[in-house]
Amino acid sequence: MGAGQLARMSALQAFRYGMQVASFSDRNETEPLEFMTPSIFKGDFTDVESMIDFANTCDVITLENEFIDSKILFELRERTGTPIYPSPETFELIENKEIEKMTFQDAGIPVTPSRIVSSPDDIKTFADKHGWPVMLKSSKGGYDGYGNRTVQHAGESNGAFNDLGGSEGRDILAESFVDFTHELAVQVARSEDGKTSVYPCVETVQEDHICVAVKAPAQIDPVLAKEAQRLAKLAVESINGVGIFAFEFFLTTDGQILLNETAPRPHNSGHYSIEGCISSQFENHVRAVTGLPLGSTDLNETAVVMINLLGTQKRKARVDFAGDAMGAVNGHLHVYGKTDSKPGRKMAHYTLLGSDQETIYNRAIQVTLNIQI
Amino acid sequence: MGAGQLARMSALQAFRYGMQVASFSDRNETEPLEFMTPSIFKGDFTDVESMIDFANTCDVITLENEFIDSKILFELRERTGTPIYPSPETFELIENKEIEKMTFQDAGIPVTPSRIVSSPDDIKTFADKHGWPVMLKSSKGGYDGYGNRTVQHAGESNGAFNDLGGSEGRDILAESFVDFTHELAVQVARSEDGKTSVYPCVETVQEDHICVAVKAPAQIDPVLAKEAQRLAKLAVESINGVGIFAFEFFLTTDGQILLNETAPRPHNSGHYSIEGCISSQFENHVRAVTGLPLGSTDLNETAVVMINLLGTQKRKARVDFAGDAMGAVNGHLHVYGKTDSKPGRKMAHYTLLGSDQETIYNRAIQVTLNIQI
Repeated sequence: MGAGQLARMSALQAFRYGMQVASFSDRNETEPLEFMTPSIFKGDFTDVESMIDFANTCDVITLENEFIDSKILFELRERTGTPIYPSPETFELIENKEIEKMTFQDAGIPVTPSRIVSSPDDIKTFADKHGWPVMLKSSKGGYDGYGNRTVQHAGESNGAFNDLGGSEGRDILAESFVDFTHELAVQVARSEDGKTSVYPCVETVQEDHICVAVKAPAQIDPVLAKEAQRLAKLAVESINGVGIFAFEFFLTTDGQILLNETAPRPHNSGHYSIEGCISSQFENHVRAVTGLPLGSTDLNETAVVMINLLGTQKRKARVDFAGDAMGAVNGHLHVYGKTDSKPGRKMAHYTLLGSDQETIYNRAIQVTLNIQI
Repeated sequence: MGAGQLARMSALQAFRYGMQVASFSDRNETEPLEFMTPSIFKGDFTDVESMIDFANTCDVITLENEFIDSKILFELRERTGTPIYPSPETFELIENKEIEKMTFQDAGIPVTPSRIVSSPDDIKTFADKHGWPVMLKSSKGGYDGYGNRTVQHAGESNGAFNDLGGSEGRDILAESFVDFTHELAVQVARSEDGKTSVYPCVETVQEDHICVAVKAPAQIDPVLAKEAQRLAKLAVESINGVGIFAFEFFLTTDGQILLNETAPRPHNSGHYSIEGCISSQFENHVRAVTGLPLGSTDLNETAVVMINLLGTQKRKARVDFAGDAMGAVNGHLHVYGKTDSKPGRKMAHYTLLGSDQETIYNRAIQVTLNIQI
């Protein structure tokens, strides 16, 4: 469910296995997946009734986002008998960020200190204990930084709290701000029989809470990379996840690895794996949710870099000046097939493989610099 | 045009670039590509009128087979203004195998001796000059050996000639039988501006004129492999081809390389390139026909093997016992999404990458041996 770029890239893998794909979207516009199947359903993520026909068409359902209430998913599965992976039980554990954090803590996974705040005053109380600045996150529906605000001091509490819908009763999570040297991510695919395939630990480069680039593998002490992989595996097991999951970590200035975010789906930080790994996050997601054996997550090259290509202007989507990027040896362009571009919208990405990470990172930046989308 | 596995695998690459794909098929059954687009057209390959709406939908048209008369393609392009690659001019040169061979000979490319025969007696005359056995090929529409017969002696001439439709006025080409040590293939992608990307020379393993496996690179003297690549490039240039082309060669017992067959499209002998090369034959085909710069054809591993998985029985298509194949490290299964299986039908293929060719060839055979489709 969902018909954006993550659904589209997953569908490309499903097609490779000869599967058929149906699309369910809650948007009026024609979404990327909807150009790739004759089987198109429209509905509402809050209305089970609108999903019934779609679910009855499917042998298995998966999701490209975490916006659907687990109660809806439970009911959909109950009424149609169609399996849903990740399961409603898993979504129930992670849809509320406080419950999610407690689950991970109980499993022995270090997380950033946090608590649900129900007023601007609560934010100040939290800051008294953990210090300023405080990160505020919408406890449900956060996506690409849209649900995040950094509160530098008490004076900003009211505005940020209201921006995130706190005054309308939305759950807001306050998190202590972590001093970190690296932001890391690890993908894990897990099958229903409990087998896992853990991807390399990668470094994400973020600007304004949006991932702009990924470097694989992360250039950190291998012991720490292994620890992040161990924690990611533990995390997916603690929520009995089936499918692909992404875990984002902070590597703190004092060398600690703290779990920060979870995505129960293919994730931008794993796009590098399409060419970068023997089996990509999308391939292993499809394998996991359809009961096929998982594939290897080994890197195909010493170094892999992924650059997000965000919309540069408001217009009908079109890619210009990509010749250098496409001409670079072992450079791979992926365009998501969105009909409309706007500044900052995720429209495409570019992956470059090579032997030396710094070299290919600089080269990838250079050949994508002039791309207009 | 055409909506089988070659169109499907090309479409997967087009989707990667954010393109939309329309399907044109002349078959009643739902074909593999038709599960991958909402834009589905049905018609007749001999009826231009039935193609007009499809052509008007497209920015560019390409074909997955060589069954459409060039006259039809000329007319379609004339009436709709939609470019067609490979061009009608190219199809005109290769649709008749005698003209095709003359074109290649004029370009200095060694081909097997051949001539058009219009009666069983002509076959005998040809054999008097070049010896028995004689290969008979339907001059148009040959595909996977369906249009081929080996004539061992004069007594078999009548039957083979009639089998291929010679008595109904179909053009039949007689070819001298070549003693060879290897059957080779080389893919070449070529852009409208004349740039080419030449793939490695590979060895095809054939049974009953059907390709059952491909070994990349071919285990032959590198000088000979280079020569096959040189001839393939020369061949595509001689017909001004735009798109991906496959050239099949005999390496004769006396060390000669003779051009045997041409396919103006992605070809079974190039499926290995999906994982085996930096840019696959499908990717470079899409790049070539849409005017994008061509990608590298370098191998991703020392050795790559592709095994064709043919239908094992008549039933609704389903893949059983593929666990070993999917579990093998760097083994990649592709299933074409055909709805019905029958013995011998091309249903899927399997690619295995590794460092030693003999090892991975044996392993690929072993892990695919029990697959039922």
